Amino acid sequence: MTSYLDESNLAKASVATDLTVRFAETDAMGVVHHGAYVIWFECGRVAWMVAAEMPYTEVAASGHHFAVTGLHVAYRASARFGDPIRIVTRVTKLRSRQVEFSYEVRNASDDTLLVTGVSEHVCVDLTGRMAKIPQEIFDRLQAGAARLASQ
Amino acid sequence: MTSYLDESNLAKASVATDLTVRFAETDAMGVVHHGAYVIWFECGRVAWMVAAEMPYTEVAASGHHFAVTGLHVAYRASARFGDPIRIVTRVTKLRSRQVEFSYEVRNASDDTLLVTGVSEHVCVDLTGRMAKIPQEIFDRLQAGAARLASQ
Amino acid sequence: MTSYLDESNLAKASVATDLTVRFAETDAMGVVHHGAYVIWFECGRVAWMVAAEMPYTEVAASGHHFAVTGLHVAYRASARFGDPIRIVTRVTKLRSRQVEFSYEVRNASDDTLLVTGVSEHVCVDLTGRMAKIPQEIFDRLQAGAARLASQ
Amino acid sequence: MTSYLDESNLAKASVATDLTVRFAETDAMGVVHHGAYVIWFECGRVAWMVAAEMPYTEVAASGHHFAVTGLHVAYRASARFGDPIRIVTRVTKLRSRQVEFSYEVRNASDDTLLVTGVSEHVCVDLTGRMAKIPQEIFDRLQAGAARLASQ
Repeated sequence: MTSYLDESNLAKASVATDLTVRFAETDAMGVVHHGAYVIWFECGRVAWMVAAEMPYTEVAASGHHFAVTGLHVAYRASARFGDPIRIVTRVTKLRSRQVEFSYEVRNASDDTLLVTGVSEHVCVDLTGRMAKIPQEIFDRLQAGAARLASQ
Repeated sequence: MTSYLDESNLAKASVATDLTVRFAETDAMGVVHHGAYVIWFECGRVAWMVAAEMPYTEVAASGHHFAVTGLHVAYRASARFGDPIRIVTRVTKLRSRQVEFSYEVRNASDDTLLVTGVSEHVCVDLTGRMAKIPQEIFDRLQAGAARLASQ
Repeated sequence: MTSYLDESNLAKASVATDLTVRFAETDAMGVVHHGAYVIWFECGRVAWMVAAEMPYTEVAASGHHFAVTGLHVAYRASARFGDPIRIVTRVTKLRSRQVEFSYEVRNASDDTLLVTGVSEHVCVDLTGRMAKIPQEIFDRLQAGAARLASQ
Repeated sequence: MTSYLDESNLAKASVATDLTVRFAETDAMGVVHHGAYVIWFECGRVAWMVAAEMPYTEVAASGHHFAVTGLHVAYRASARFGDPIRIVTRVTKLRSRQVEFSYEVRNASDDTLLVTGVSEHVCVDLTGRMAKIPQEIFDRLQAGAARLASQ
């Protein structure tokens, strides 16, 4: 009896999100500002949750949030205005109170790996206090990951 | 008996806010992205309200917001990373349900006028419905403007 | 003999761009921050230019930019995290040195009009000086608009 | 003979930067979006370099950039609109081709530690290729750190 998902399974449950670099996301170095990838990670995990049929909007509606507690980013190559970007997102940890997402950001035109990263989250309630992920949400995340892994 | 402030008085109640251009606020043209000025206007009106001793945090705490309904911006010259910026903010209209702020953004090192703008606001309650500005808030805005005008 | 496009034609050359509200685009009022629409307008005009087969990346590569000189936004209704957004963009003015784009932003799920806006641009060279739109770029914008209008 | 600074010395060369939370920096959770701290780190290191009398604008003017290669952020407590924020920045590594900055972000009103982080940088030239930090820039960074450490 375990309260969390087989993590080898989670690794297979990847979701791709595509976007195009906005001009506003560039900076005076002529490339995408390093802060933009943090926003794209968020787009990636939101898309993962939609694909897993446990959309984040419903987590918020339940009075909970997955607050970010940690962030690790490795920058390898830069992107430019107009580049097609693909973010591949995985859940790499799912615990009763914690979730961890991992990301690969690539230039979709030539598959160059641009950035990798990890974000760590704890479940909090509306007062900001740490809380157990509500059981229904936890179960739907697991079921969604299993479904995505088998696709 | 009037429910709004003498507007010639308002024009004198200007508040200056200083900031330095952030690298993240530049874009691949090498200058400040035009969207950044919209954020700076917001900094300007927040500072105006602090200076008028009717801080926006207290408006929000009262369950109200000054939602933006209109925005007009004229761009004259560009700013660059590291430039010292001065935003001069005025309230140019104060009605029972509406507020209008006007802005001049200058390069503080040589006083070049960069951008001018106007933002129009209506008071809304927490459900987003238009509402009268609560009397106490209205009175404090008036008193604050009068105080600022006489400085 | 005219150096600009029939503007009744331009009005028909609309391009729709779809996006989903990012969590980072919301603010503490619980809705999309008013500054985000300015970024979305930019996404809209970039998409218009791609659809017109005169992508902005090529304008930049030619050593020119369409610098923003004016911005007008009317906010009618708010959007929330996760909402599907449709931006409909038109070129409403095309002169030898100036371009004007107009925008309608709607909630794509129920077609509610959220925001309308106009952005005014002048062509500048790499030194930031006003310049004629290079003839080839001008011609391709016209041809693209005509093509879009007839679709 | 060493090409880098005594690092125990670097740790003493801290620079404090103060700012106020902008409304645009909050999100629908009612607190500052986690991406904003990444921008604040940038403000912190820019201020460190100004205090060290080796402003980043001069690095850029020399045709170099300190490109971000890594980012690590630990989030401990949240900040809200209007909160006074203090960023304390240190250089924690200075090598011939690399710089590392470390940050502590606190609520300046009660000194609560909100966020800590580290950013790793390599020196690149205008083509984006890794390069040695120009000797003059390196020396001025060292001298600046020594001066700050002794204050």
